[in-house]
Amino acid sequence: MDSTFLSQFIMITDIKTVIFLATLVGVFFLINKLKGKFKFTQLMIVSIFLGIGLGFLIQVVAQFPTDPSKLTWINEVSKWYGLIGYGFMDLLKMLIVPLVLVSIIKVIMNMNQGENLGKLTSKTVVALLGTTAVATIIGIIIGNLFKLGVGDKVVKTTEQMREITSVVDTLRGLLPSNPVQSMADANVVAIVIFATFIGLAIQRLRKKHLETIMPFINLVEAFYKIIVSVSITIIKLMPYAVVPLMANTIAENGLNAIVGVAKFILALYVSVFIMFLIHLLIVSLNGINPITYLKKVSKPLMLAFTSRSSLGTLPVTIEALNDELKIELGTASFVASLGANMGMNGCAGIYPALMAVTIANMAGIDMNFSFYVMLVVVVTIGSLGIAGLPGTATMAVSVVISGMGMGAYFPLAGGILAIDPILDMGRTMLNVNGAMTSAVVVSNSLGKIDKKGLNEKSA
Amino acid sequence: MDSTFLSQFIMITDIKTVIFLATLVGVFFLINKLKGKFKFTQLMIVSIFLGIGLGFLIQVVAQFPTDPSKLTWINEVSKWYGLIGYGFMDLLKMLIVPLVLVSIIKVIMNMNQGENLGKLTSKTVVALLGTTAVATIIGIIIGNLFKLGVGDKVVKTTEQMREITSVVDTLRGLLPSNPVQSMADANVVAIVIFATFIGLAIQRLRKKHLETIMPFINLVEAFYKIIVSVSITIIKLMPYAVVPLMANTIAENGLNAIVGVAKFILALYVSVFIMFLIHLLIVSLNGINPITYLKKVSKPLMLAFTSRSSLGTLPVTIEALNDELKIELGTASFVASLGANMGMNGCAGIYPALMAVTIANMAGIDMNFSFYVMLVVVVTIGSLGIAGLPGTATMAVSVVISGMGMGAYFPLAGGILAIDPILDMGRTMLNVNGAMTSAVVVSNSLGKIDKKGLNEKSA
Amino acid sequence: MDSTFLSQFIMITDIKTVIFLATLVGVFFLINKLKGKFKFTQLMIVSIFLGIGLGFLIQVVAQFPTDPSKLTWINEVSKWYGLIGYGFMDLLKMLIVPLVLVSIIKVIMNMNQGENLGKLTSKTVVALLGTTAVATIIGIIIGNLFKLGVGDKVVKTTEQMREITSVVDTLRGLLPSNPVQSMADANVVAIVIFATFIGLAIQRLRKKHLETIMPFINLVEAFYKIIVSVSITIIKLMPYAVVPLMANTIAENGLNAIVGVAKFILALYVSVFIMFLIHLLIVSLNGINPITYLKKVSKPLMLAFTSRSSLGTLPVTIEALNDELKIELGTASFVASLGANMGMNGCAGIYPALMAVTIANMAGIDMNFSFYVMLVVVVTIGSLGIAGLPGTATMAVSVVISGMGMGAYFPLAGGILAIDPILDMGRTMLNVNGAMTSAVVVSNSLGKIDKKGLNEKSA
Repeated sequence: MDSTFLSQFIMITDIKTVIFLATLVGVFFLINKLKGKFKFTQLMIVSIFLGIGLGFLIQVVAQFPTDPSKLTWINEVSKWYGLIGYGFMDLLKMLIVPLVLVSIIKVIMNMNQGENLGKLTSKTVVALLGTTAVATIIGIIIGNLFKLGVGDKVVKTTEQMREITSVVDTLRGLLPSNPVQSMADANVVAIVIFATFIGLAIQRLRKKHLETIMPFINLVEAFYKIIVSVSITIIKLMPYAVVPLMANTIAENGLNAIVGVAKFILALYVSVFIMFLIHLLIVSLNGINPITYLKKVSKPLMLAFTSRSSLGTLPVTIEALNDELKIELGTASFVASLGANMGMNGCAGIYPALMAVTIANMAGIDMNFSFYVMLVVVVTIGSLGIAGLPGTATMAVSVVISGMGMGAYFPLAGGILAIDPILDMGRTMLNVNGAMTSAVVVSNSLGKIDKKGLNEKSA
Repeated sequence: MDSTFLSQFIMITDIKTVIFLATLVGVFFLINKLKGKFKFTQLMIVSIFLGIGLGFLIQVVAQFPTDPSKLTWINEVSKWYGLIGYGFMDLLKMLIVPLVLVSIIKVIMNMNQGENLGKLTSKTVVALLGTTAVATIIGIIIGNLFKLGVGDKVVKTTEQMREITSVVDTLRGLLPSNPVQSMADANVVAIVIFATFIGLAIQRLRKKHLETIMPFINLVEAFYKIIVSVSITIIKLMPYAVVPLMANTIAENGLNAIVGVAKFILALYVSVFIMFLIHLLIVSLNGINPITYLKKVSKPLMLAFTSRSSLGTLPVTIEALNDELKIELGTASFVASLGANMGMNGCAGIYPALMAVTIANMAGIDMNFSFYVMLVVVVTIGSLGIAGLPGTATMAVSVVISGMGMGAYFPLAGGILAIDPILDMGRTMLNVNGAMTSAVVVSNSLGKIDKKGLNEKSA
Repeated sequence: MDSTFLSQFIMITDIKTVIFLATLVGVFFLINKLKGKFKFTQLMIVSIFLGIGLGFLIQVVAQFPTDPSKLTWINEVSKWYGLIGYGFMDLLKMLIVPLVLVSIIKVIMNMNQGENLGKLTSKTVVALLGTTAVATIIGIIIGNLFKLGVGDKVVKTTEQMREITSVVDTLRGLLPSNPVQSMADANVVAIVIFATFIGLAIQRLRKKHLETIMPFINLVEAFYKIIVSVSITIIKLMPYAVVPLMANTIAENGLNAIVGVAKFILALYVSVFIMFLIHLLIVSLNGINPITYLKKVSKPLMLAFTSRSSLGTLPVTIEALNDELKIELGTASFVASLGANMGMNGCAGIYPALMAVTIANMAGIDMNFSFYVMLVVVVTIGSLGIAGLPGTATMAVSVVISGMGMGAYFPLAGGILAIDPILDMGRTMLNVNGAMTSAVVVSNSLGKIDKKGLNEKSA
């Protein structure tokens, strides 16, 4: 009789697994106790540090192994922690389709005739791609200051790079040729387009056929209320989810692997930090106190950092923009939904720029001004080309490296890919902050930000 | 010119096919005539016997072939019969997604604040897994009394067993990370979870925002009424569908194949019968007269027996629990939906237990007390691990055999798998009865069964 | 640095691509200017000719290449033109699922008790298959008059033909065993069946439970209004989409390839023309002036011709039947939805008949009267068997050739397949006209055509 069956099935074969599961339960009790004493944002910070501590503890107990994924008990702990952490993210993701569908319809149908949807769209795209271009420049500068890749050896590859999807095919792919399938595939951009058509039709019919379409309007308002309420309920669980998410990221990456590419990690986080400051500058140029801003948007930032999912964070992002920053729902939903799919400052801006510089240095490619200009253009347009594709950051690098004609050297990035989750935290947070900054810019340029009210309240 | 094209296309190449299609039409006329004279349940019993008779007639005409599936005309008859039988099941299955979604939302949103959803969930899981454990014990006892597998030869295999999905992955898979996709995949548990969140939000919003969410509440009530009405319409066709379903099962299995594993078949049906009696005992311990119970739930039992689909029977199961047994819709929908996906008494309890005993005897494995305890545990937890997977019974056996470390002997079960439909009828009926018994237990433990009214009426 | 990356990404590597994109923009400005001066139908005709001219211009510039698809710049132009043309079709297709679902529910729920759904269904199937049979006969006659394939050499093949799906499996496949999946797959027939059940339940519940189900009825009416409004908005863009669609078809087919099978093309268009006249005859026999009819249905016909998609044209077909021809929504939706999936006069009638004659002549098969009778039967029933499958025309040919026992010669049709889009235009237009003619027949036989009003108005 195979007595290990049960333990394999319930994923507990080692006393250490039991101990760390118990520890997590203990941490949850602690958080539960701290709930009354701390504000939500403070509680979130505490949770992140508890998560880091827990992850570090696992590393200590495992004596900082080279490859933690080879230890069975770490895999088990990480599976169980993942059940809670990613399970929470699944619940958030559950809301994306209904939330995007209903909020966009609600917003468009309530728009005044005077307002221009085309303006909103073009401003959104410009803001998202513009910040991505800036992020790329930051990446290039920091990458060179850190001399990434200089002195490292080079190995050529014959592996085929993933072909870039042309802008034409990308745009075609975004069209909702069947709205139900688009929803089943969680194709956010297609849902936005479908919802926009429905919303515009309602807006038009309001004048003459209000009575006929009223049941639909009322249903949209009702369902929006309900889905936002579900969203608030789930968000309340965030501090609990953040602990295992954070602990997993820390525990799963070998210290050696991290040290080996420490320079790259540092360069990325320095770039992220600088870009973050630029975001805050942009926000304050649009009349919002950056401290106020930070306080209001800390929830989605912390979730993005710990969960590493821009799309999963979307419901929280929309909530923060609309409820906290008082950006009207239309702009909030629209910019955040698009921003979770294109023009990602971290994944499709800084990261591919750093990688391009690293590989160019390794391969001894001469980087002149035209190389840099080309890089910025390729990265920015590439960030549009990968809209809605999974594995955004890796895809972005693949597109950019290939686009710069350096596909042959790609595998060199292997060491960096191994500790990807460490980088992904910063990148994803920057993605979300880029989308929120864009929302502020768009909202302000449409003259719709209640700057006074916002800044006074927080003062 | 290929003159057989048309006949192949319309699946009629033999005069026998024509005759048996005509016979079925004749039987339908008969049922139509009997409709006025019999009650629905009686008509169902008549249909089942007509179906058995028809299937037997096919066997007689084919002179009891070793492998009926090698006779073209039997294949043709079975295709045409299947069109009616499984076509009917398709229509029932059509109702599962909307029915589960709407009934769970309706139920949760109308729950009183006092009621505890967690209690309902835990009681349901305990009842379903508890009855499965009992069913496993029955299987072990009967399997040993019948000395299944004793004296049969053993052949080792090098084939790889399907790996067991860990409980963590199973639980993750049940979460509805996209409700539209969950619905497209008919993932019942995920739909229940999504609907529960929506229902809870409505319950919460009722106090302060009743006017805003009223359109959604009214829509749910309206759609529930409509879908139940569709369901009643389709259920009325059941006596017609039962004939070809039953006839197919009888006609498609070779007599030799049945005789070869007659002992196993007998052991399974004896186990099913005993477990069925235990269900009735449990029901009567919960204050319902077992005769009354049997009368009220005969529809889903007979459909489960003939259709061999727990999930397809779900709309009928819910209807019987709610309308006939007067179990409130909440418990009825909730327990029946979960019970069609986990803790199946027949497919995931008795059957894998019998198979384990058979194979252990064949392989000469010593079965001591700890083997049996282990088996009960493995089967019960395994019945949770295969939740929502297709081919439940075979999966369950695969998991259990592998979990007991006997994977090497699995192919020995080949002869039994060949006549699986014969076994599946009893198993599926027991699954559904287990779910309904669990619903009675849960409902009674929540103090919600109108025992008096129920028993008096039928008296 | 790979300087071609960007140009590949944006699909512009040649000055000719730029010129033809600019030309298209110029044409759009022209259409925009003509908008005020022309009626919509006239504008559509102008657009078609502009598209043909543009396609011809591309051929001229490319000096009538043997295989235009080998010229990079033509591929680029065609990708960009396709983005606009097929992008428009995607938006139309977006409406199919909601439009069919809601219009069928709306229609059935508003039917009077007296009306017979079974009659509507059987009349529809008879009309669609009947016109297909007539189309097949036309195809046989014209194919023989043109002596298609006579004198061409024959090559045998060992390739396996696609097996025909039996009528039983086809019917099973049409049942909506999960309505959400049917919608995600845009399975029109399954959606019609599901919607019919819902509609019938509403009709039944209207008497006693009107108040409960009213919210659902109102929602259906509201959503129908909205989706029709979206549909009207999108249809307005048709003249713009028609130009690139038409230009692509002309530009993508090599002149040599066309000349090589000119006789076949001519035969097909002659057959289409004759069948079209027969449709008009049928229409006038049903009391509608054929000139009036043509005026009223020109929109879907022109869209079908240019877009080559019966299904994509569906929203426009329904609109024309209901709004212009005043056929009541029920018959319009029902017949058009089914007609976009079965009994296609062009794709599943004329085309396979011509191909069968061609191949029989090539292979020297003797075609006697029984061959022709068999062909009509195989084509007509085959047109039912391929219901809802993609690549209708090729599937139909495959089924018919195989059904006539001539599968061995199939690859001979290669030359014809190469210029398929040229043929597809005529075929698809005939499909749509066949469906509309059937709708007229069905509507008239139910005594529901306002012949007087229709003919007077247009007089």
